[in-house]
Amino acid sequence: MSTAPPPSPLKKPCKLALLQLASGNDKAANLANARKQVAAAAARGANIVVLPECFNSPYGTSYFRSYAEPIPHGDTTYPDSLTPSYTALSTAARENNIYLIGGSIPEHEPATDALYNTSLTFSPTGALLAAHRKIHLFDIDIPGKIRFIESEVLSAGATPTLIDTPYGRIGVGICYDVRFPELAMMAARQGAFAMLYPGAFNMTTGPLHWELLARARAVDNQVWVGMCSPARSEEAGYTAWGHSMVVDPNGEVVAGMEEGEGYVEWELAPERVVEVRRGIPVTRQRRFDVYADVAVAGPTEGKKGV
Amino acid sequence: MSTAPPPSPLKKPCKLALLQLASGNDKAANLANARKQVAAAAARGANIVVLPECFNSPYGTSYFRSYAEPIPHGDTTYPDSLTPSYTALSTAARENNIYLIGGSIPEHEPATDALYNTSLTFSPTGALLAAHRKIHLFDIDIPGKIRFIESEVLSAGATPTLIDTPYGRIGVGICYDVRFPELAMMAARQGAFAMLYPGAFNMTTGPLHWELLARARAVDNQVWVGMCSPARSEEAGYTAWGHSMVVDPNGEVVAGMEEGEGYVEWELAPERVVEVRRGIPVTRQRRFDVYADVAVAGPTEGKKGV
Repeated sequence: MSTAPPPSPLKKPCKLALLQLASGNDKAANLANARKQVAAAAARGANIVVLPECFNSPYGTSYFRSYAEPIPHGDTTYPDSLTPSYTALSTAARENNIYLIGGSIPEHEPATDALYNTSLTFSPTGALLAAHRKIHLFDIDIPGKIRFIESEVLSAGATPTLIDTPYGRIGVGICYDVRFPELAMMAARQGAFAMLYPGAFNMTTGPLHWELLARARAVDNQVWVGMCSPARSEEAGYTAWGHSMVVDPNGEVVAGMEEGEGYVEWELAPERVVEVRRGIPVTRQRRFDVYADVAVAGPTEGKKGV
Repeated sequence: MSTAPPPSPLKKPCKLALLQLASGNDKAANLANARKQVAAAAARGANIVVLPECFNSPYGTSYFRSYAEPIPHGDTTYPDSLTPSYTALSTAARENNIYLIGGSIPEHEPATDALYNTSLTFSPTGALLAAHRKIHLFDIDIPGKIRFIESEVLSAGATPTLIDTPYGRIGVGICYDVRFPELAMMAARQGAFAMLYPGAFNMTTGPLHWELLARARAVDNQVWVGMCSPARSEEAGYTAWGHSMVVDPNGEVVAGMEEGEGYVEWELAPERVVEVRRGIPVTRQRRFDVYADVAVAGPTEGKKGV
C-alpha cells in the first residue's frame, strides 16, 4: 500500500459561503438582497459564494415563465433590462472579487421558447464561467405530502458542469440533481474538490433526505459538499426546508443552520481532503476492471432532450 | 408523469434476520453458535438469515490462513473434515428451510494457494447459490486510529454477486465493498430488492460511516440494505462496531441494535418499495443519455486480479 499522500484537488485554502436568502415575489428586491448579502459575505472573507435555487423568484411551476430571462452567451447579448439577474450576479461577483455560484434562476431560451432551471457562475471579473441547466427535473408525487412536476413547464439540461478556479475544480448540480450519484462521481473523478448544490428541498423530503444525500455524496467521493437552500417562508406556495450546510470530505456536517435567513461559512483546507483520502484511500481502490467508471464511460443511451 | 406503479422487485413478503454473533478463536464453537442462532431465527419466522463477516474466525490478517477452507464447487469436492464451515452453513440452511447468507469466511483456493474473504449463500435445500469473494479489500491507514491491510494476505474477488430467490433478487457485498457505490447501483438496476453486507467496521470507521453508507446505498437505489456485524469483543484484536441494522428503501433505519450479541429482524413488504419508488421515482428518471449506467456499461479497465 503506497504511503505517498495523494495530491489535493483543492489547491489552496478558500472560504466557502452559502447564503440562505429569503425571497419573495419582487424580483428586483430579491436581486438587491442577494447583492447586499454577497457583499457582506465577501467582507467576511468569502472567496466562493453560493446562492439558493430560484433565489430571484418564487419556486413554482406557475412562476417560472414570468420570471425567466434569457442568458447572454458567446456572441448573443441582450439589453441589460432583459437580463436583470444575470447583470446583478455579474456585478456582484466583480464588485466583490469573488466566485459566485448564482443559485439558480428560471432561464428562457428564445430560440426554442424552452424554460430551464439554470445556475450561473461568475468569476471575480464578472465573466460568466458556466450555465448549469438542471439535469434531473423535480417530478415527484408523494400522496398527501408533496406533488411537484417541474417537467410540466421546464426542459432538462443534458450537460454536467465543472468550473475551474484558482482553488481547483468545482462541480455544480441543482437540487434534485443531488439524488443522482453520477454527477458527483464524475466531478470528483475529474478532479473536483467540491460539489455545490443550490437546492430547495421541502418539508417532506428535507427531513428525510437533505442531509443524507449531502453526506452520501461527500463520503463516497471524498469531496466537500455545499447545500444552499432558500430560507423558509410559511407564506410561500412551496415551503423550503432550509438547513443549508457544508459537509467535509469525510462525510461530516461541519457547518449548518436552521431554516431562517442567514449564512453558513467554512474554511476549506487542502490538508483535510489529503488526510481523508490517505486514511481511507477509496479514490485509489476502485475496481474499474469490475464495473464502469462513469467519469470515462460516457452515456449508455442515445441522446435525448437538450 | 406516469402514475402507473412500478413493479416491485420484492415479489412477496419476507422476514430478514441479521444475526450479530459473538465469535472467538474456536472455529467449532463459532460454527455451533451460528447453527444454534440460525435455528432460533428460523423459529421466529425468518426467511432470509444473514451472518456477520468472518463469523467463524477472528478478524485479522494473521488468522486468515489458518482458518481458511476450500469451497466445494462444481465437480470439485472435499472431505467434510476440510470444509466444516461450508458444511455447517449448508446444513443450517437445509435444516431450517431458509436462505442463508453465510456472512463470510476465509477461503483457501488450492489451485493458486490464494486466500479470499468469501461469503457463501445457501438455499433452503442446502445448495450453494453463490460464493462472493470480497471485491474491495480493506486497506486503510488512519494514523493513530486504525491500520488494517487485508491485501497483505488476501486476494480480491472480481465478480459482483446476485442471488435469485423466490422473494426476488438479492445483491451481496462484504464490508469495505459498501464504500463503493457501484455494486449496489448495479444490483438494484438489475432487479435486486436488497443489498446485504456482512461487515465488521471498527471503532473509528463505525461511528463515522457505518450507518451513513447503509442509508446512502438504500436511498440512492431504493432498496433495503442489511448490515450484519459481529458482536463487539473488547478482547479481540479487532474491535467490531456492531450496530447491525436494516435500512428501508427510503433510506430510513427501521431496525437496529447496539454492540452486543443479538439479532435484528424486519418484515420486508413489497408495498413499501413500490410506495417509495412511486413517490420519488428516481429509478425512472436517471439520465443515461448524460452518463453511463454502470449496470450495463461494463468495466472500463483491462481485467486484472481474479
